[in-house]
This record gives sequence, structure tokens and C-alpha cells, in this order.
Amino acid sequence: MADTPPPSALPADTLEATLLAQARQARAASRALAQGTPEARTAALVAVAEAISAATLEVLAANARDVEAARARGMSPAMLDRLLLSHARMASLVEAVREVARQPDPVGVRLAAWTRPNGLEISRVSQPLGLIAVIYESRPNVTADAAALCLRAGNACLLRGGSESFGTSSALVRAIRAGLAQAGADPEAVQWVATPDRAAVGHILGGLDGQIDVVIPRGGKSLVARVQAEARVPVIGHLEGLCHTYVHASADPTTAVEVTFNAKMRRTGVCGATETLLIDAACAPALLPAIAARLTAAGCELRGDAAARALVPMAEATEEDWRTEYLAPILSVRVVAGLPEALAHIAAYGTGHTDAILTEDAGAAEAFLNGVDSAIALHNASTQFADGGEFGFGGEIGIATGRIHARGPVGAAQLTTFCYQVRGTGQIRP
Amino acid sequence: MADTPPPSALPADTLEATLLAQARQARAASRALAQGTPEARTAALVAVAEAISAATLEVLAANARDVEAARARGMSPAMLDRLLLSHARMASLVEAVREVARQPDPVGVRLAAWTRPNGLEISRVSQPLGLIAVIYESRPNVTADAAALCLRAGNACLLRGGSESFGTSSALVRAIRAGLAQAGADPEAVQWVATPDRAAVGHILGGLDGQIDVVIPRGGKSLVARVQAEARVPVIGHLEGLCHTYVHASADPTTAVEVTFNAKMRRTGVCGATETLLIDAACAPALLPAIAARLTAAGCELRGDAAARALVPMAEATEEDWRTEYLAPILSVRVVAGLPEALAHIAAYGTGHTDAILTEDAGAAEAFLNGVDSAIALHNASTQFADGGEFGFGGEIGIATGRIHARGPVGAAQLTTFCYQVRGTGQIRP
Repeated sequence: MADTPPPSALPADTLEATLLAQARQARAASRALAQGTPEARTAALVAVAEAISAATLEVLAANARDVEAARARGMSPAMLDRLLLSHARMASLVEAVREVARQPDPVGVRLAAWTRPNGLEISRVSQPLGLIAVIYESRPNVTADAAALCLRAGNACLLRGGSESFGTSSALVRAIRAGLAQAGADPEAVQWVATPDRAAVGHILGGLDGQIDVVIPRGGKSLVARVQAEARVPVIGHLEGLCHTYVHASADPTTAVEVTFNAKMRRTGVCGATETLLIDAACAPALLPAIAARLTAAGCELRGDAAARALVPMAEATEEDWRTEYLAPILSVRVVAGLPEALAHIAAYGTGHTDAILTEDAGAAEAFLNGVDSAIALHNASTQFADGGEFGFGGEIGIATGRIHARGPVGAAQLTTFCYQVRGTGQIRP
Repeated sequence: MADTPPPSALPADTLEATLLAQARQARAASRALAQGTPEARTAALVAVAEAISAATLEVLAANARDVEAARARGMSPAMLDRLLLSHARMASLVEAVREVARQPDPVGVRLAAWTRPNGLEISRVSQPLGLIAVIYESRPNVTADAAALCLRAGNACLLRGGSESFGTSSALVRAIRAGLAQAGADPEAVQWVATPDRAAVGHILGGLDGQIDVVIPRGGKSLVARVQAEARVPVIGHLEGLCHTYVHASADPTTAVEVTFNAKMRRTGVCGATETLLIDAACAPALLPAIAARLTAAGCELRGDAAARALVPMAEATEEDWRTEYLAPILSVRVVAGLPEALAHIAAYGTGHTDAILTEDAGAAEAFLNGVDSAIALHNASTQFADGGEFGFGGEIGIATGRIHARGPVGAAQLTTFCYQVRGTGQIRP
């Protein structure tokens, strides 16, 4: 599919027809995958990892071209960091696929079983979702993670990557499909939308004649808005990560400095990066200067409210700052009166993604964990742990911020549905 | 709210403003409910059951007016049966609420917990979904079931019942809210759309400014089509139930006759009623006459393919019959060559709801249970067991036929989401 002509050459009906044909091929391929053994799915994933590894130089060459073009167009350093692959990142991308191969197979698992008084034996059994369309932006590792997780759960996928990483992802998909073929699996289970034409997204959101079971969008506000307006199929939503780290009055000073620094600066371009620091007024005089010094020494810009600026010189935070996912070395800082005000700030400005409290007070920690309405709530740990791999899922398609089906890191187990199997001996209902 | 003026008196912006105010009140009320104890939710449900029981005569009087009006408009007997309440049905409606009160509380349950190599303790904890809008048609028991299941899971609900049962459901909601108040819970957690104006559905499907977390539609094709076209919020879909009973060559004759009869005739107006009988050519000559005799003696009309008509006199089934959810004493009958043809028929015409195989051949039974892509697959039991109460869920909002979030009977446990709580000791991500 990577050799399909560029989009401008395709009339709209041909684009839709192409996508529909891809979706049908994918569904057909997924049936064999779903009804195959867990061992067959594992073997396919191992072969995919090998094939990507073997294609490292080709993928890196394509990535260098993508990065050069993006830099020429003036892409921000944070976005370039998302796009960039290196030998080390390729190795970790391959290792992530191997890790997915090692994960327990989530298909055909008896999730629950019980017997009714009338003797009916009921069991809830996991099944693949079917055909999953993943619409994402610049990070090429999503291509490998999404394909691997879909395959682990017996699903087919239709991948629509961002235009910035188009060449990189195309090369990755070629390798993935080659790996499937080498394992004797049907490469049509992984489909790539071989055009950056944005009309393709519209067709996918329309469901392609009922072929698409669920759409997983990963991207910024404009993609989310488009999905919300156009989707005619179920969506597992991935909003931005406007993550907070809250330093409670009883925080350990070293934890406050080191965890805040890691939450903001480990990688600033990831969705689990902290964007706003909330700090209790009671400890701000003692802790904020040290936290700020560690951050600014590493090049982080601070923007604070009046109370923060009275303690540490920094730019003034505007209302807009509390609503901004910087994805850059910038941190907004607000001094709060205590836990209720911190929770209220997060409820007002957060995106339900990931938020952390740093405290040695167990009661405050539990109140925060139970009171914050986020997919991931952490106590004394960096928000950058918001990651399927760090959760032990062997990777993730993303961090779901909606409330339906999956929430938090979406791994293979979250890409299944279930059915009920009822075994009787001639029971009729009175 | 039941005393709100009729819809034609309300300009559109007032209708939307009213619904928005109701949604906001409901969300606020649900927070107290969600953060209360399981015992408080149980006490509220017990009080709701008592209040409905105490309002029996009032509800039956309202129902008699609804039924009379529906009969005058020429409603079909099957639909009238769905609408009609009696003392016995009121008692079972109240008992269903009590059964929900007895169910294990699904909120705050630690669904999974594990420790990562770096010492992070991760747990997945169930939470209420938030505000659930339920859009349904004529069956008034949905009003009580939906409210009870939402409350059990700590959710608020906005109920939009069908115009045919408007008076009945209004009376039920008055009783439910009175029960909540008597238990010291906030009655605003259960909201009723106090107008049959169909514009209300449009506002709900638009999400009411982000207040609605999920919409659960229960109804016929026109409602489903509208939801698909207009919904801007997540939907847990409930399509029609075009259920099949497949009599395999190795079926026990008594089971074949009695289970088929029950699957079709116990109640013809429910979504779990069998609409199509598939029967193997190998056993049709021996079994179809007895199955048909039992059905026709009870007033069931048969419509068959040529092979069926060669064995038993009956009307001719058209292509349209295979696609029709009769909800009436009519059964389409098709003779098939064997299991693969039965599965192919169900894949082509079924709605993924509930399908049964009747056989003494264990291998055929397992092949059917694993091969049919339905929310509920049964072996040697009536399709009329497709019911949350019969599954032990203490009731249901409906049978979900989609693949996302919930599938099959939707009880209280299916009306939750989850979050991750991560407990650390200062971990940072390398």
C-alpha cells in the first residue's frame, strides 16, 4: 500500500473506495488472527519485531527526511523531539513490540463465570473488538505500538499517521507487514492510509460502511474537535494531557524537588509531562525556591501567580496559562491554600489525564487519589509514569481521557470486547 | 419536574436551558451519591422501592390512561403488552429495584492491583460514569430499572421515556424522587424530561454542553438512526434483537419443541424473543412438524422457505422476513444444510443480540458458541433468557449490541468506569 499514488492524483470516490477495500481486507484478515491460537499471535508479533529491527536503517533514513522537512517548515523543538527516531529509539521501539509479544494473550479469556439457580452456566469471554482505526499525529512509534497491540488482541487496524511522520510510518508499516507475511499471518491485518490527504480522516470517521468498529484518535485540539463533529462510529477518546503536580504542605523536600523536576523536564513533549505546579502556601516559602532553581537551571521557564512571584522572580501567569499544554520547557505555578483548592483547580483546568500529589501525609494522599477525577492519579511519583509500558502493558496506543470502554493507558487488554456464553440443558424461561 | 408545562408551550431555547439546568443539578447530586458509602446507596434504593410500591395505584391509574390512549391510536397488541402494567407487573418492578439494592455495590471496587519492579503500586478502581442519559420507548419498567441501576453505580440519570408511556413514567419518576428524598439522598440525581417534544432528544444527543457522559438509547430503527446521525457524546448502543434459534441435527426432540416454543411465544414483544428458526435439513422432517404444531396451536404464524414449506404448510418467507424483528407471534423458518450455513445466516441477518443452538453434540455447541458474533450465545436454552435479571444483575437498562464498553445485559457494574491510582515513594522516570 505504501506505493499507492499520492492523494492529489486520486479523486474523492477513489479514495473512499480504496479505504473501504482496505477495511474489508483488514476485517477478513482479522478473522483468521482472532480465531488463531495465542501462540500464533505471539509468533506473528515476534516476526514483526524482527522485521522492524531488520528495517532499522531504512526507517531511520525515512525519518531523517521527515525530520529535515519538518525542521524546514519551522516545527517546534518539542514536536521535533516527538518525531525524531535514533538507533536507540528504534531499539526501544522494537523492544516494545517484543514486550507486547510477551504479554498474556487477552483473547478468549474467561473474565467471569457463574451458575444461575436454574442451572444455566454463564461465562463472560473476551473477544477482539474487530477493526480499529487509529488516527494520530507526529510520533512514529505509535505506528509500531498500535499495530502490535491490535495484533496481540486479535484485531485488524487501519493506521492513519500524521503527515510529518508520513515517510517514517510508511517504512514501519512495510516492515510490519513483511513480518506478518514471514510468520505466515495475513499482512492485510495491518493497513496504512497511504495518503496525507485529510479527506481520508473524514471517510474513516464516517465508519466506512460499518466496517470500522472503533476509532482511536490521538492528537491535538483540532483533531479532537473534528472527531467530535464528524464521528459516526464509537470513539475511544484521547485528549491532551494538561497534567498537574501538587506539592502538599507535608511534602518531603527532596521528593518535591526531584519529582517535580522529572515530571516537567524528563521529556517535555509527552502527554504525561506536568504543565502546572500547584503548591501549598504553607510550604511554598520553604520549597518553591529550590524547586524553581532546579527547573530554571535546566532551562525551564516559569510563569506564576502573584503569590509564586512574591517568592521567586518569574513571568506572570495569565488565565490562558492554566489552560495550556505547553509540551515545552515552560511551567505554570500557582500557590493554593490547600487540598480543596488544588482539587478545584484541577477540576476546572485539567483534562482528566494524569495528576500527582507529593506528600508524606497518608490521609491527604488518599483524599487526593479519591477526589481527583483523572484517568491516572499518583502519589509521590512523577506524572511521566503515565505510559502503558510503565504500567506493564507492554506499550500503549495512548492514554484515554474519556470515560467509556477504556480509561488511562490503552494496552492490548483494553482493545477487546466480550460476549456471554450460556450453557443450558433445555431451560425455558417461566 | 413532572408538572412542567407541555412542550408546545416552551420555546426551543427554554427547552434546552431547562435540560441543561436539569443536567447540572443531576451532576451535582451525583457527586454526593458517588462519594457516599455503599450502605447509603443501598438505603436510597430500598427507599425508592418502597416509594414506588406505595405509589402503585397512582402509577396504575396513569398507566391505564396511557394504554387507553395508545389503544385508541391503534397500537399493536405486542406494543400494548410492552406498555401495560398490572398489579403483578408493578410488584415485579418493585422487586427488581429491591434486587438492585441487594446487588454488590460496584463503586470503588479494586478491579486489579499490581506492583511494578520500581516499587510503584498500581490499582484499577471502579468509579461511576457520571451523568447517563437514557432514551427509551414504550416500556415503563425501564424507568425504574434505569434509575435504580444508575443509582446503584453512583450515577445521576436523565430519563427520556417514550410518549406512549409518558404518564406512567412521570408517575414512576415522582415516586423515585420521593423515595430518594425520604432516604436523605438528593432527588435531583434522577431527572425526567418532562415533555414528549422530540427536540429534547436532539439536545440530549448534543451532550448539553458536555454535561452528559454517555447516552443509552433503547428503541427501534428510527431512534437508532437518529442517535447515529446526531450523537456528539459516547453511546452504549442497543439495537433491535433479531434473535435466532438454531435446531441442530443432534437436537433432543423435546428440547427442540419446548425451547423453541418458549423462545418465540413466552412474550413476543421482548427483544430476546426468537424471530427466526433455523433447522438442519437432517432433522427437519422428524422435528419441524412437532415444533410447528406446538407453535400454531398457540396462534403463531409461520413463514418458511421452500424446504420448510415442503414439510409443513405455511406462508412463504420473503427476503424481508429474515430481516424483520416481528415482536409478534410470527416466526420465520429456514432449513439449513448444517452449522456453517446457520452461522452464515446469523452473520448476514442477525443484530448481534442473542442466538441459540439446540443440540446434544458438545462439539457443535462449542463451535456455535465460539463462532457466532453475538452479545449472548446460548446452548440448549431459550433466547428469552437475554435479560439482566436472568443473568443475576438485578435488572438491566437493556441489552447492548455494540462492541464498546458494555455488551449484552447492561447492569450496574457496566455503568461504571475506572481510574488508576498509583502509589509511590518518590519514584522518577529514568
